[in-house]
Amino acid sequence: MKIMLTDSQLVEWLKEDIHSWDISTTDQRYKRTVSADIFSREAGTICGIEVVKQVFQLVGIHPNDIQSFVIDGTDVQKSDKIMEIKGEARHILTGERLALNLLGHMSGVATKTRNLVDRAHLLNPHVKIAGTRKTLPGLRTLQKYAIKMGGGDTHRMSLSDMVMLKENHLAEFESEQLAIDTAFSTKSFTHKIEVEVTNPNQAQRVAKTGKVDIIMLDNFSLEQITPTVELIKEINDRILIEVSGGINESNFESYVKTGVDIISMGALTHTTKPLDISLLIK
Amino acid sequence: MKIMLTDSQLVEWLKEDIHSWDISTTDQRYKRTVSADIFSREAGTICGIEVVKQVFQLVGIHPNDIQSFVIDGTDVQKSDKIMEIKGEARHILTGERLALNLLGHMSGVATKTRNLVDRAHLLNPHVKIAGTRKTLPGLRTLQKYAIKMGGGDTHRMSLSDMVMLKENHLAEFESEQLAIDTAFSTKSFTHKIEVEVTNPNQAQRVAKTGKVDIIMLDNFSLEQITPTVELIKEINDRILIEVSGGINESNFESYVKTGVDIISMGALTHTTKPLDISLLIK
Amino acid sequence: MKIMLTDSQLVEWLKEDIHSWDISTTDQRYKRTVSADIFSREAGTICGIEVVKQVFQLVGIHPNDIQSFVIDGTDVQKSDKIMEIKGEARHILTGERLALNLLGHMSGVATKTRNLVDRAHLLNPHVKIAGTRKTLPGLRTLQKYAIKMGGGDTHRMSLSDMVMLKENHLAEFESEQLAIDTAFSTKSFTHKIEVEVTNPNQAQRVAKTGKVDIIMLDNFSLEQITPTVELIKEINDRILIEVSGGINESNFESYVKTGVDIISMGALTHTTKPLDISLLIK
Amino acid sequence: MKIMLTDSQLVEWLKEDIHSWDISTTDQRYKRTVSADIFSREAGTICGIEVVKQVFQLVGIHPNDIQSFVIDGTDVQKSDKIMEIKGEARHILTGERLALNLLGHMSGVATKTRNLVDRAHLLNPHVKIAGTRKTLPGLRTLQKYAIKMGGGDTHRMSLSDMVMLKENHLAEFESEQLAIDTAFSTKSFTHKIEVEVTNPNQAQRVAKTGKVDIIMLDNFSLEQITPTVELIKEINDRILIEVSGGINESNFESYVKTGVDIISMGALTHTTKPLDISLLIK
Amino acid sequence: MKIMLTDSQLVEWLKEDIHSWDISTTDQRYKRTVSADIFSREAGTICGIEVVKQVFQLVGIHPNDIQSFVIDGTDVQKSDKIMEIKGEARHILTGERLALNLLGHMSGVATKTRNLVDRAHLLNPHVKIAGTRKTLPGLRTLQKYAIKMGGGDTHRMSLSDMVMLKENHLAEFESEQLAIDTAFSTKSFTHKIEVEVTNPNQAQRVAKTGKVDIIMLDNFSLEQITPTVELIKEINDRILIEVSGGINESNFESYVKTGVDIISMGALTHTTKPLDISLLIK
Amino acid sequence: MKIMLTDSQLVEWLKEDIHSWDISTTDQRYKRTVSADIFSREAGTICGIEVVKQVFQLVGIHPNDIQSFVIDGTDVQKSDKIMEIKGEARHILTGERLALNLLGHMSGVATKTRNLVDRAHLLNPHVKIAGTRKTLPGLRTLQKYAIKMGGGDTHRMSLSDMVMLKENHLAEFESEQLAIDTAFSTKSFTHKIEVEVTNPNQAQRVAKTGKVDIIMLDNFSLEQITPTVELIKEINDRILIEVSGGINESNFESYVKTGVDIISMGALTHTTKPLDISLLIK
Repeated sequence: MKIMLTDSQLVEWLKEDIHSWDISTTDQRYKRTVSADIFSREAGTICGIEVVKQVFQLVGIHPNDIQSFVIDGTDVQKSDKIMEIKGEARHILTGERLALNLLGHMSGVATKTRNLVDRAHLLNPHVKIAGTRKTLPGLRTLQKYAIKMGGGDTHRMSLSDMVMLKENHLAEFESEQLAIDTAFSTKSFTHKIEVEVTNPNQAQRVAKTGKVDIIMLDNFSLEQITPTVELIKEINDRILIEVSGGINESNFESYVKTGVDIISMGALTHTTKPLDISLLIK
Repeated sequence: MKIMLTDSQLVEWLKEDIHSWDISTTDQRYKRTVSADIFSREAGTICGIEVVKQVFQLVGIHPNDIQSFVIDGTDVQKSDKIMEIKGEARHILTGERLALNLLGHMSGVATKTRNLVDRAHLLNPHVKIAGTRKTLPGLRTLQKYAIKMGGGDTHRMSLSDMVMLKENHLAEFESEQLAIDTAFSTKSFTHKIEVEVTNPNQAQRVAKTGKVDIIMLDNFSLEQITPTVELIKEINDRILIEVSGGINESNFESYVKTGVDIISMGALTHTTKPLDISLLIK
Repeated sequence: MKIMLTDSQLVEWLKEDIHSWDISTTDQRYKRTVSADIFSREAGTICGIEVVKQVFQLVGIHPNDIQSFVIDGTDVQKSDKIMEIKGEARHILTGERLALNLLGHMSGVATKTRNLVDRAHLLNPHVKIAGTRKTLPGLRTLQKYAIKMGGGDTHRMSLSDMVMLKENHLAEFESEQLAIDTAFSTKSFTHKIEVEVTNPNQAQRVAKTGKVDIIMLDNFSLEQITPTVELIKEINDRILIEVSGGINESNFESYVKTGVDIISMGALTHTTKPLDISLLIK
Repeated sequence: MKIMLTDSQLVEWLKEDIHSWDISTTDQRYKRTVSADIFSREAGTICGIEVVKQVFQLVGIHPNDIQSFVIDGTDVQKSDKIMEIKGEARHILTGERLALNLLGHMSGVATKTRNLVDRAHLLNPHVKIAGTRKTLPGLRTLQKYAIKMGGGDTHRMSLSDMVMLKENHLAEFESEQLAIDTAFSTKSFTHKIEVEVTNPNQAQRVAKTGKVDIIMLDNFSLEQITPTVELIKEINDRILIEVSGGINESNFESYVKTGVDIISMGALTHTTKPLDISLLIK
Repeated sequence: MKIMLTDSQLVEWLKEDIHSWDISTTDQRYKRTVSADIFSREAGTICGIEVVKQVFQLVGIHPNDIQSFVIDGTDVQKSDKIMEIKGEARHILTGERLALNLLGHMSGVATKTRNLVDRAHLLNPHVKIAGTRKTLPGLRTLQKYAIKMGGGDTHRMSLSDMVMLKENHLAEFESEQLAIDTAFSTKSFTHKIEVEVTNPNQAQRVAKTGKVDIIMLDNFSLEQITPTVELIKEINDRILIEVSGGINESNFESYVKTGVDIISMGALTHTTKPLDISLLIK
Repeated sequence: MKIMLTDSQLVEWLKEDIHSWDISTTDQRYKRTVSADIFSREAGTICGIEVVKQVFQLVGIHPNDIQSFVIDGTDVQKSDKIMEIKGEARHILTGERLALNLLGHMSGVATKTRNLVDRAHLLNPHVKIAGTRKTLPGLRTLQKYAIKMGGGDTHRMSLSDMVMLKENHLAEFESEQLAIDTAFSTKSFTHKIEVEVTNPNQAQRVAKTGKVDIIMLDNFSLEQITPTVELIKEINDRILIEVSGGINESNFESYVKTGVDIISMGALTHTTKPLDISLLIK
């Protein structure tokens, strides 16, 4: 699994941090060759190794001088060494901030996802923990990749991936049936259809159309969920059921126990503490 | 104060979300003209209005059909209406996610900043709450702008803004004096110099060079800070003093009381819950 | 349905044609305001109207001076007027070539698709005519959009859309079962799986896994197809069946009659005569 | 002869095909090192070797692992091996489609051009077969390069290359003389002038101005051409004569026999069957 | 004559000057609507009006609030008002520097060119004053356009415009004849050929090939030029003759008198004092 | 000190010069491996070595085949060899023009700066010679870097670097005091404030605010400067004093003698003769 993060994207991000040039390291002394360790100050799931390698190459470090000790998706402990970089001090200092911002953020997403997935699988090994489209602009691929490295499901990457009919969509039609028929006949055969419902009756109507692959229970109360799941599966047991809305790290387990197939949480990508990772020149 | 957020940057972000086209709104019915309200589901400081206007124009909404009821930096209450958009349903639905992701994130940063600034100013009206370079790649200008809208200080925008000598820099020289002399003689007259120190003795040595504008106390214990501040001010009362490291929302007030000039926190931009903002088609 | 064709993409294409400036229209006389008709020299399905409008605006024509008489997907007859443009002669002459190249090509794809769809639906109104990923670099969205405007199915827009296991993929596994199990457990719940098979036995094995949404019969002889369709549908009648390979405009109807669900043809986008469209200054 | 096809252009094309990442090859098994042959399934003229090398490097193949057995412009037979690639299966599978789309298309243009050039030169070894500006947006340089590799003449690369006055240009002036005088006095000395004429009298008037390098006979009937050629050459034998319009692969030879210097055909680039080229993992 | 200067190019240049935002105009007072005059502090030829309009629109000024009193190519006197802009002070102040840098530079090139052209035409009304490829990176089109507005000849816009064989080219062949024959047979019929010669004998040999459109006398002494011109014209009076090398504003007239057709000077674009133009808020 | 000049920026500049391809070097003979010397035809300060290396790599020269004999900032004599390049003739010829344009221009700026700095330091070793924002669009970083290599001060890199209040800014406020108070309270603590004054009284008022780091004397007569310097230093001797306006290479020394800290000159970057540098294939 390989993401195409272009040099020109990374250079743009480097220039965001460097602007003209690093005015703190213009002296010749900063050309001294040094070694630097990148290590984690807390336990977590590492993500972003390849990206960081690319960053350091772009600021002038030779590929052979960039070593990594883990791959994306590896769990590390506090103080574990993740990478070692050798090169001119000025190069390392110039790339440091972007490298750590990326590595910290991506590892933060992966760590949070893995924690939730692990907790969920104790209760139900088949449930999927999924992200949403509530990502940070420009970072979707990196964030979705980090979700995947943490064991989560990426959900839709974009509006082109799967048809999804929400409240605002259904409102344009006289009935759910019509909305779904229309979507079914205009979409490509390669795409699935998911429909968001707000109450059990609607869930039932939608399931009965026979044209829906996934039903999302939006902001259902916990008590409503299990009966609705049973209702839908009775009609068509191939329909997957997703819940979303109002789920947080504390009430999370209750949702896992309802028997839904997928739990999606925007907070995987929009409210994430970065993993605390440092670079130290030796 | 005006940020140049280019159409092409926004279009790139739109395409990240749209990819080919929105396969859920291809039917003619989605061409119906509708009105949509954007409103906040919680109290906070709004930021990102101009950006959101630009987003909706790019998906095809006429500028005259985009109304805003607040400006960036305004505090709103739960349920307050922020904007109203009129246009084809498909256009609104296509721009919705990026618009809300930006507005929510920027308002989240502004809200967090304002809360901290307000709490700080009760104790010391002169202290500045500042961000750091721990921003999300590609979002620095937006995040720094949100800090400013929340009443915070942007700190360095890039490595070109101010000379900053940290532990890793000083390590390349025999003495702080030499490191600072070198920086002073190579930098432009337009730039200030900040030096990071890790103990009171070092703070004293650095202050005595007479060439430093700001001293940052890095990971000092709370007890060490006030005496160090006094030490420095005695040597040169024009030197500004910044603290950073280990500061969070709960221990925050203790740092304010130490008498430092600036408290900087990476978490303003790297760990921010977005403000909960929704769009509803009427 | 709206494609985001960015101004900067179109400007790049304009500059490809203009380079420095149009050296044939530098004289003041070319500033005269003129009217130009765009009309079709043959019958066909028009596609690209919005793109052409954007092109002429970018070379300096006012939006109000660009009129269109049809929308994308409309069938026209020989000599039908499609658009009328008013503006400085030099502007019209500078945009003409790109506008016609786009309109001709997209209409060519739409026309070819519609012809095939119409012929197919006489025999089987449920069969889908689909494109492939054999598109021209940089033009995929426009070409897929043209297929859709001609009544075809877009098939995969990219490698992120649907899992597709071909001969080269299956070869990496000991069995189809293992390849499919692996794909099923790593893909997102939002994605379908399609598997390409080269003989009826393999089709049967793949169908029996119960995890496949579409089976593609690759380069099957005409005689093999119908029995294989029946074999698969007997195992699982929800599996869609696609044929590809060796299909051309003359043998096309025989494939429609086999009872497959989808016929895909690379030639929809890679070998297309443009519709003959001209611009004449009045 | 070297075209500057930028990495960033190719990456854009790769991303068009890959979008987020290739969801079919995420499993570890696809990291196995394999060898793949690229070979032609029909006879033709190969074009695009260097571009394909660049594509495979961009997806992660080492330059030393990409071998080519022919250079651009080489004629191959059915089943001839063109290239051999060694690398991780997932890398080869990710680059395959773009590589083949480019190689097939460019070789298609080169093959068509060479066929026509060869047929023409049997009758008149001095006639040039030229392309036009009817190219596909974004692909002009590649298509013109393919024409050149097939032995054709590129004609104008852009509107900056040569002055060309067509019907729509002449219409802005009282006389051809005035139009030509104006163009002659405003153009750079580095540029030639070509004028399109629609009848023999106009050809004569244009030739007599003494300021025209090339005359294009637009949509002349076959019978008109030879006498007009003689007429022009009598006035000025240094004027080159081009024909265009209504020429196709079947009536083509008749045009060659008329004695014109240049035959230009838009179909070289706008209606081209790609050469059938495959990649097979061994 | 219209140059396609893209918004995104100008925005890039604006961002070069603005970086994050203009920190000097963040106060609300800078939102006051003001009027500003752009006027010349010295006599000269104005060039860049359309570009400046585009710049001010991009920083937020309404097109109707940007007035110009001259067009590109107009000669102005000291103190002449060139443009008037109305808008928020902060917008005008933000765009001012780029606008003046462009207007000053382009007018500087146009002014220098016109002075030389005027002086030359007093002595020989047919001689052309041409630029070279010694332009500033990224500014070629603007600089060549300014040359044209000043009455000069643009010469080659790029390496694709005309074949030009210099000393370094001829050195790769056994004889000039072979070099020229090769170039003649590989170039498109749309291109001219120019050959640089370093002595009269070589000029003669080159002229005799009959395949050369322009001969450049490179670093010839003044005395050598007239006889060489006569020599060439005798062989073929359609060959244009260019001189280059060692020509400056003081010895310039002597070269005009030699009877050459074209005098080219890199200094038109590489050593140009900008016209002194100011913006004053009223 | 390292500037991030992106490959994609350089490729854009290469394409500006190459457009489609170099039509003069398409023959196979230009593939011969040759050596070329880059040498200076006059004495000066070299700047741009790293950039030139990057250019030649981008046209296909191997890094090991590019040798440099000096580093940026080195003074060379007439005929000194600066670099030696080995590679295919066509590659060297294709990169030559851009390489020399950059090297000549940057060295021209560095040479001019060094001359002025050297002359100034004979009279006052502490005075700084600074650039301005009057740079050429797209070339600011390169030009400022060249100033630094010549021993000058870069001054503001952009509008984000330092607050600078000029006449047009002060005009928006009732008093200088208010303008300065406003700027002081809205700017980041990382930024300095400079104020431009037009007469000694204003200088005095500004100095007394106690919030200003630098005062610029704008277009002061020579006689006014020294008394104003004394006046300011008496009020606050930490304030730096800059002069600008009307300073040229001939009256320059008089300004140095006035005792100001900084002399800034737009002409460092906007009116610069390139250093005369040539490339010769051996």
